[in-house]
Amino acid sequence: MTDRSRQWTAALAVIGDEILSGRTQDKNVAQVATWLNEQGIRLAEVRIVPDEPARIGVAVNELRAAYDYLFTTGGIGPTHDDITVDAIAAAFGVPVIVHPEARAILEDYYRDRPGGLTEARLRMARVPEGAELIPNPTSGAPGVKIENVYIMAGVPYIAASMLEALSGKLEGGKPIVSVTVGARAPESDVADLLRETEAAHPGVAIGSYPFFRDGRYGANFVIRSEDGDLARSTSEDLADRLREAGFEPVAGGL
Amino acid sequence: MTDRSRQWTAALAVIGDEILSGRTQDKNVAQVATWLNEQGIRLAEVRIVPDEPARIGVAVNELRAAYDYLFTTGGIGPTHDDITVDAIAAAFGVPVIVHPEARAILEDYYRDRPGGLTEARLRMARVPEGAELIPNPTSGAPGVKIENVYIMAGVPYIAASMLEALSGKLEGGKPIVSVTVGARAPESDVADLLRETEAAHPGVAIGSYPFFRDGRYGANFVIRSEDGDLARSTSEDLADRLREAGFEPVAGGL
Repeated sequence: MTDRSRQWTAALAVIGDEILSGRTQDKNVAQVATWLNEQGIRLAEVRIVPDEPARIGVAVNELRAAYDYLFTTGGIGPTHDDITVDAIAAAFGVPVIVHPEARAILEDYYRDRPGGLTEARLRMARVPEGAELIPNPTSGAPGVKIENVYIMAGVPYIAASMLEALSGKLEGGKPIVSVTVGARAPESDVADLLRETEAAHPGVAIGSYPFFRDGRYGANFVIRSEDGDLARSTSEDLADRLREAGFEPVAGGL
Repeated sequence: MTDRSRQWTAALAVIGDEILSGRTQDKNVAQVATWLNEQGIRLAEVRIVPDEPARIGVAVNELRAAYDYLFTTGGIGPTHDDITVDAIAAAFGVPVIVHPEARAILEDYYRDRPGGLTEARLRMARVPEGAELIPNPTSGAPGVKIENVYIMAGVPYIAASMLEALSGKLEGGKPIVSVTVGARAPESDVADLLRETEAAHPGVAIGSYPFFRDGRYGANFVIRSEDGDLARSTSEDLADRLREAGFEPVAGGL
């Protein structure tokens, strides 16, 4: 039975030299965060680590112990720099095996493709002993689940299809509801007003995210709560207070 | 004297509920990574942590001990959710003070602006005792440096201007040179070729980054080395090997 009253948490380990070098703009943090929230699970920490087995191992062992779930992205393809499965197997202290079902999926997927199931492609059937598979409706090679660790592809659209396959299958709590109000206000002009609004509504957190656009300052104020009605009534109160202070509130944000 | 022969490393702590909620797409990882590389410093780890003082403190103390430099982004504005300075002062075990020079900068910046230097804005002059300032040519409120920790704004264009102000001022080693070769090859078809090329050129690392675009598979292969000539000659060798295998190499990547 899912205990919806407690807060469920997850961490994400992004494995990839290409992110740390600045070459590739990460897209997985935002998409995993958004998906987790829909599952009623809070993304509580992200670590981006290089393609080094020892560094992956430390991150995986710390994060899987600290949170309910750990997701990883990256490093599960067919090439020599795809070392995530080996690193995580080592972190768990188990050998790497070829998963029979993964092998069958790959045999089927590559049957009519040029080259067939090469040795390189067969690498993608390797899993830590004791692991299960995460379906990959997009490109054949499955993700891997071992205990509370979900090992996913780094290519964002493939990771997205693995998340889709996991939707509704994880135990979670209440999703966080967030309501956004924007205003063309320099955030320093409304700092007191924000603090007072948050203090007046226990159970909400208000974040302030300033921007400078079209030559003018503005900010979006995000009200978050597990209680959707409370988030909405707080946003209305905040809009009233902004209006009184001379700033036109914009529901949904700017 | 800068020791250019050793590898200089940095970590980045991104402080922000808005990133962990999926609401905001992070831009600072890529820009800090790119800038660090230009300074001859390797971004070795990133952690994204929530706006919670204890969590910020743990990340800051672990990362500043493990790497030459620690950069942080986020949470230094004028609003109640801007708690980075307090959290980092607590992590260092020092009090928070109003920095006289920061106060003077803010007095000057807000002199002719509506509202002047309010109490909320004055929050942005608070620093951990013993800290220095990082100039902010964009929006007045400075960044903060304490020991090897560089505390920067979360808004990407403001963080960029703080990085610009720090350019060439940090000790670093040799920048990593990266050369990219692309090909319309499924990466599993060239996995052996990549491994062999990397093995034939000690001192380089080759990353493989697959994509699916316009209905076709392809991949970019990134050759990285501290030795620019070696990176370039390896890329030429890789291009030859790709051509021999029937894939047209594209210098600079696809």
